[in-house]
Amino acid sequence: MQQIKGVFILMKEFFISHGKHQGGNLLDTLRSYDMAPPTPCGGKGICGKCRVRILKGDAALSAPYDHNQPISREEWDMGYRLACRTRVSDDLIIETPDNHYTNGNIMTDSFSDTAIKPAIIKKYMELPKPSLDDQASDVDRIEREAWGARVRSIDLVRRIPYILKVNDHKVTCAIAGDEIIAVEGGDTSSACYGVAVDIGTTTIVGMLIDLNTGDEVGIYSCLNPQKQYGDDVISRIDHTKACPDGLSELSSLMIGQLNDMLRHFCSKYDISRASIYHMNLVGNTVMMHILASVSVDSIAVSPFNPVFTRFTGARGKDFGFEMCPEGLVTILPTPAGYIGADTIACISACGMANQQGLSLMIDIGTNGEIALGNKDTIAACAAAAGPAFEGGHIECGVGGIAGAINKVVFEKDSVSYTTINGAPALGICGSGLVDAIAGMLKLGLIESTGRMITRQEAEARFSTEIASRLREYSGKSCFMIASKETGAQRDIYITQKDIREVQLAKAAITAGVKVLMNECKADYCDIEHVYLAGGFGNYIDMDSAAAIGLIPGELRDKVVPIGNGALTGAKLSLKSSDYMADTSRIYKLIKYVELSSRPDFQDFFVDCMELA
Amino acid sequence: MQQIKGVFILMKEFFISHGKHQGGNLLDTLRSYDMAPPTPCGGKGICGKCRVRILKGDAALSAPYDHNQPISREEWDMGYRLACRTRVSDDLIIETPDNHYTNGNIMTDSFSDTAIKPAIIKKYMELPKPSLDDQASDVDRIEREAWGARVRSIDLVRRIPYILKVNDHKVTCAIAGDEIIAVEGGDTSSACYGVAVDIGTTTIVGMLIDLNTGDEVGIYSCLNPQKQYGDDVISRIDHTKACPDGLSELSSLMIGQLNDMLRHFCSKYDISRASIYHMNLVGNTVMMHILASVSVDSIAVSPFNPVFTRFTGARGKDFGFEMCPEGLVTILPTPAGYIGADTIACISACGMANQQGLSLMIDIGTNGEIALGNKDTIAACAAAAGPAFEGGHIECGVGGIAGAINKVVFEKDSVSYTTINGAPALGICGSGLVDAIAGMLKLGLIESTGRMITRQEAEARFSTEIASRLREYSGKSCFMIASKETGAQRDIYITQKDIREVQLAKAAITAGVKVLMNECKADYCDIEHVYLAGGFGNYIDMDSAAAIGLIPGELRDKVVPIGNGALTGAKLSLKSSDYMADTSRIYKLIKYVELSSRPDFQDFFVDCMELA
Repeated sequence: MQQIKGVFILMKEFFISHGKHQGGNLLDTLRSYDMAPPTPCGGKGICGKCRVRILKGDAALSAPYDHNQPISREEWDMGYRLACRTRVSDDLIIETPDNHYTNGNIMTDSFSDTAIKPAIIKKYMELPKPSLDDQASDVDRIEREAWGARVRSIDLVRRIPYILKVNDHKVTCAIAGDEIIAVEGGDTSSACYGVAVDIGTTTIVGMLIDLNTGDEVGIYSCLNPQKQYGDDVISRIDHTKACPDGLSELSSLMIGQLNDMLRHFCSKYDISRASIYHMNLVGNTVMMHILASVSVDSIAVSPFNPVFTRFTGARGKDFGFEMCPEGLVTILPTPAGYIGADTIACISACGMANQQGLSLMIDIGTNGEIALGNKDTIAACAAAAGPAFEGGHIECGVGGIAGAINKVVFEKDSVSYTTINGAPALGICGSGLVDAIAGMLKLGLIESTGRMITRQEAEARFSTEIASRLREYSGKSCFMIASKETGAQRDIYITQKDIREVQLAKAAITAGVKVLMNECKADYCDIEHVYLAGGFGNYIDMDSAAAIGLIPGELRDKVVPIGNGALTGAKLSLKSSDYMADTSRIYKLIKYVELSSRPDFQDFFVDCMELA
Repeated sequence: MQQIKGVFILMKEFFISHGKHQGGNLLDTLRSYDMAPPTPCGGKGICGKCRVRILKGDAALSAPYDHNQPISREEWDMGYRLACRTRVSDDLIIETPDNHYTNGNIMTDSFSDTAIKPAIIKKYMELPKPSLDDQASDVDRIEREAWGARVRSIDLVRRIPYILKVNDHKVTCAIAGDEIIAVEGGDTSSACYGVAVDIGTTTIVGMLIDLNTGDEVGIYSCLNPQKQYGDDVISRIDHTKACPDGLSELSSLMIGQLNDMLRHFCSKYDISRASIYHMNLVGNTVMMHILASVSVDSIAVSPFNPVFTRFTGARGKDFGFEMCPEGLVTILPTPAGYIGADTIACISACGMANQQGLSLMIDIGTNGEIALGNKDTIAACAAAAGPAFEGGHIECGVGGIAGAINKVVFEKDSVSYTTINGAPALGICGSGLVDAIAGMLKLGLIESTGRMITRQEAEARFSTEIASRLREYSGKSCFMIASKETGAQRDIYITQKDIREVQLAKAAITAGVKVLMNECKADYCDIEHVYLAGGFGNYIDMDSAAAIGLIPGELRDKVVPIGNGALTGAKLSLKSSDYMADTSRIYKLIKYVELSSRPDFQDFFVDCMELA
């Protein structure tokens, strides 16, 4: 693999055998050779980052031009195609777009860096048995084959004589840097796994990765079990303060859930828990502190400083993880109380810290974490956006679940919508909400101040179809999007208060962006890319987002959704020590801007309350 | 201190104020400035290693020549004196004997290396409190004052926010290399201790050392509690094999005893257990393995290889020591099954590994560990000498306790003796035994083959006084040294079997020496120093040792007793990281010679059985 990759990097041309990858997707095929660039759009044919030039391959070359792909007609005719949209229908010779990759584009660095270079390497060794001519100690016999690495754990030293004896001196070592962290009987070199985890306040997502190949073996997601103590980080902090054992209770819940994840992986993919050697964790600062059972008191009150920012040297046994006891547990840096390891991971994933030009990264969740910068410096802030875009604090709001209204289309006389998975509507999620408010604004049902017009005003200006949707519901004026009569599971509507929530959230984020632009003395035209992280960023309609001013019109065409950037970042730094090392560099680049102490934030916030 | 020391090393002259050190011993005074060379003879005026030249100081200069000191009349007149034999009776200006110290003599390196350079340094810091302008995490606030060291222990991270809060952000860090191992409230920088321990098969000796000053605060010795499972290492190994929990049982006994020692130090010198940051342990390979609860099975059977030779990265909590939990636990290297950390410590203490010329080091105990070499290579072996020289397996033998006959003088018609502390005789220890056998040999009571003459033969040749001492005792012929009638607590005598034990022990050691000389292609004249380690080495009469051939006549005048070299080595490497690092170099220098696989050993052994 490494060999092929090396050649690939030096040469521009690469042969892909039809026999071996028959009918497979070209992106997957490249991935199987450990050569694929990350795909911010998730292989949806949107971001254009995976393009290659087909030099030979009739089926691919004769495909009709697809104007939905980010490839010009001219380029298409020259043979450029997106790997994610191309099948291996016959033998292919492809050319990797060196010129493109070396133009300072995000993919340049990502490409070479996705080389598998895990923190753990396994080595099988058949050791000579001790004799009067070679009385070296058991540990020395192992160490002299281990590339200079040493055994440090006393527990491991204790087990070594038995492992050597039972296995006839044939063993496999797991090596992390200059330390031998495990010695196993026989040849276990093919079993080398790591887990990347994004611990969100609401959900936990983990990915099992084969550290030999970089393959993404499996994925697991679940609700954060701490949810029973509150939806947001402040409730969790309050719980640790209110109960004497609150912190260890929350920590144990989390560790227990992560152990469930590990057991799931072990059982589903038939691997031993001892062959998981590395857990790489990201999440917001509060989640990371609670995970490590470290006090979160200081994060809740000004000046909001965390207890730790970087975490080095921890082992599986320190956390009670059901993995190799001496296996590594890493947490990406958490620069501030409200800028966490998840933000570092997003910055790492989108590649902005390797670019010359300025990029904006927005991770919209309960807090909107925002970063603006380039390879030299990155200003970052956290805007208390609230959970509106995740459906929280919204009368009929739901998360991105089946049946959530995720798209709303306004025509002059009608309103239509789609739901996730086409299920009967049961609520509205962030992207639907933004669509709805953008549509109402465009039609004039909402003024730019956010005021919803009255039924009387509506009847004077709109068709009955539209005007009749303005109703009183439980004493509140609201606009009906879907009703039980038309097949929804319940009446789904937007209230004046919902609009205010969206205004506040949007104002917080856009004001945050403006403060960072002030900080970096940057103008919209200086910003080359806007990376939108999180599920919301993937599904939102950019025109709607621009219509309500969530994304300034000037930046609309620069938006690249990067999906779960936090997990991607965790994954990359698990697969590659270079990425891991780079997160420390990113940490040092970050200049945290505390919005609560910035007078300009208040001004921008008020300015940005207006829709559009 | 450091300053003064620096000046001292650059300059030859040094002023010592009478007012400050009135009447004190000059060696102690130099030690108080952290500038004294180690004194192999223990400050007894024997080794001559502490000599200085008095440039000014009437009392010292006018003292009469003392021919018992290793200083020539000529040197005496030039003002050379032994620091250990000089009082600070007035203001002194002394000159350090640079020329002497740089002549490849043992003291050269020892002198500069005894500079206090412990593995642990403490630093008091008054940290700025977090503010909106400085939101750095608690750990970062500490780390930025800690010379680049980092907190690695998750337990410590957990405690840090409370320590900072309660102590108003005034804390003291204990720093080991690049790691902060403790954070304590207030200014505790003056409390920084380490313990050096020599774990013998029979006795354990520990020394509490102030790591700030290098002062030897206290000493503690006790019997090895494992003695109940046998006197020698083989019995201990057998116990671990015979009982399923034998190893952990022996290990726990040892840890418990060491914790008793730590509690004793803490209580007697009023220090907190948390202020003991470093335990540096030496002992034979079996003791070191048992201490760490590591299997000793392989050491008992050919090829006798140990499980580990070097031990890095262990912490107090790993062993359950009642000290700083993250405090360092170091074990000097154990090169082979029967050449342990104690031998490395002796080699380090005597300085032979820093000399150009060849030196011999003999540590006489249950095993006689022998090393021959210089700064480039050291051959080492272990001769199964048995415990004769420690009084073991000797009919009336005892260790070096009060009442032990430690000196025996034969005159033509009489035999006299002295005992330790002048107490009534209750047994004979190693030095007395060697005296007795040497005396009997000289007188003709023993033939050079080791045969004791009969009563008849004696009556024909000796006075009644002597001849009457040859008796039958419990059916064995023996020679009476002391009897109840003459004030001894019991009859004390030498049996024929005792003589055989001494012959075997002596043959094992001298044959071992000869094998090493073969290995190094060395002759007696090539050997510049013979360092005798152990209590026995300190008390033995060299003439007697030479008389029975334990020390070859050619080497007799080259002998330097170095006392408990193992403890000295442990102490030096605790006080100075340079010494600690040097033990790894020494470990690499050592070429272990397995006597059981050497045909020449058997030949030498038979040759050496003869007395003298």
